Amino acid sequence: MPPLVLTPLPNIPLIRPGDNLAEFLLNSLRETGIDLQDGDILVLAQKIVSKAENRLVNLASVSPSAAALELAEKTGKDPRIAELLLQESSQILRARMGTAIVEHRLGFVCANAGIDQSNVGGEGHDNWALLLPENPDGSADEIRAALETASGKRLGVMIIDSHGRAWRLGTVGVAIGLSGLPGLVDERGWNDLFGYTLKITIVAAADELAAAASLVMGQAAEGTPAVHVRGFPYPLREGSLKELLRPKEQDMFR
Amino acid sequence: MPPLVLTPLPNIPLIRPGDNLAEFLLNSLRETGIDLQDGDILVLAQKIVSKAENRLVNLASVSPSAAALELAEKTGKDPRIAELLLQESSQILRARMGTAIVEHRLGFVCANAGIDQSNVGGEGHDNWALLLPENPDGSADEIRAALETASGKRLGVMIIDSHGRAWRLGTVGVAIGLSGLPGLVDERGWNDLFGYTLKITIVAAADELAAAASLVMGQAAEGTPAVHVRGFPYPLREGSLKELLRPKEQDMFR
Repeated sequence: MPPLVLTPLPNIPLIRPGDNLAEFLLNSLRETGIDLQDGDILVLAQKIVSKAENRLVNLASVSPSAAALELAEKTGKDPRIAELLLQESSQILRARMGTAIVEHRLGFVCANAGIDQSNVGGEGHDNWALLLPENPDGSADEIRAALETASGKRLGVMIIDSHGRAWRLGTVGVAIGLSGLPGLVDERGWNDLFGYTLKITIVAAADELAAAASLVMGQAAEGTPAVHVRGFPYPLREGSLKELLRPKEQDMFR
Repeated sequence: MPPLVLTPLPNIPLIRPGDNLAEFLLNSLRETGIDLQDGDILVLAQKIVSKAENRLVNLASVSPSAAALELAEKTGKDPRIAELLLQESSQILRARMGTAIVEHRLGFVCANAGIDQSNVGGEGHDNWALLLPENPDGSADEIRAALETASGKRLGVMIIDSHGRAWRLGTVGVAIGLSGLPGLVDERGWNDLFGYTLKITIVAAADELAAAASLVMGQAAEGTPAVHVRGFPYPLREGSLKELLRPKEQDMFR
């Protein structure tokens, strides 16, 4: 089996609304000496996709509702951030000083609705917040289409964010949008080494790759928001974030 | 920044109690043409470590307690497996038909106490269960010491298992024991790209690497229970599973 190789893509400039990410990726790949091949995957940090899609919100334009004022008091957050948090969420699971765990409108559970105030950049930094892309699967589709057209190769594109976990410390990269690669790989029914049928093994292959890419993006201070992947060990197919979301009726911890 | 390269190590034989894993790893590295370098990490599937340490239990030797009979009825599990599950756990968080979510005596939350009945191997397969290593950090220490002695290099060793997640489908690789690499990397206080101080960014670097290695170990049918890693982007240091465990008083979902 070939190795899995994850290469951070250098010299991606600071992204501004309207920027063409596919073009920046192609430039960086060229500089890095990587010729895209069938089966390659590009992994992008949520932040650059959100910025390119102008998901910046000027906090001066946000009027907190009564519910937001209540959430702000409970969590210690800026009431305008609390308002965005409510708008971006379909359910608040837990709210405590410093944090709110929510079901994001995109369907996954995460802290603070994925709203980002670091590295938002530019003048008046404290007055802007960055929301997640409106439709990350769709964002990945678009970037993939542009890269496939330019390269003539069959590719995958994934957008990732960093999430905490219920029972473990530290954040890990997870998929929030994908195009052209599987979210889950179902190994049920395959035979194990002794010929016994495995009962249940469904691997969250996209999340495993997201964690790997997040590791390579590494230190926030160095800013490598895109990673090229070669050697993903499963066949590419159409895929979606939706595969990775546990249905509520199977949720034992809400 | 250099790429992160994960190479599955071929020709690891089926492991039996008492086997010397370090020797098998060194043989496979030699066959693969990999010369160990300072900073390299070896990632091992829990299963081969548990087998080498003879953590096999013959179910015929297990007498279920009253509590085990009750858990077996609630979950549909073999009462002897339920007994082992109770012995291996410090708390049962949820028990439903088909699954029990527990705090393992090692401190992490997982399904079914990490007890494995697939690929346990040999005659009378259905009558054996495989428990997690008694002290996975210690197991990693021992294997690392043998590899460092043989190579003269500064290495890391990690033991991983596959865990489900509360709100996402599919399993991902996570660290259950480590030696010579950080569990967490604390980026608090570093400056972001605009010179603002990041408030909180603690990365579960070991878990991100575990997920990456799990992806490479891939398909159960192919059996590649060990992975060589080059290019881990953080400095190696002494580390422990304990870093990764969320203290109970911070747990919002127990």
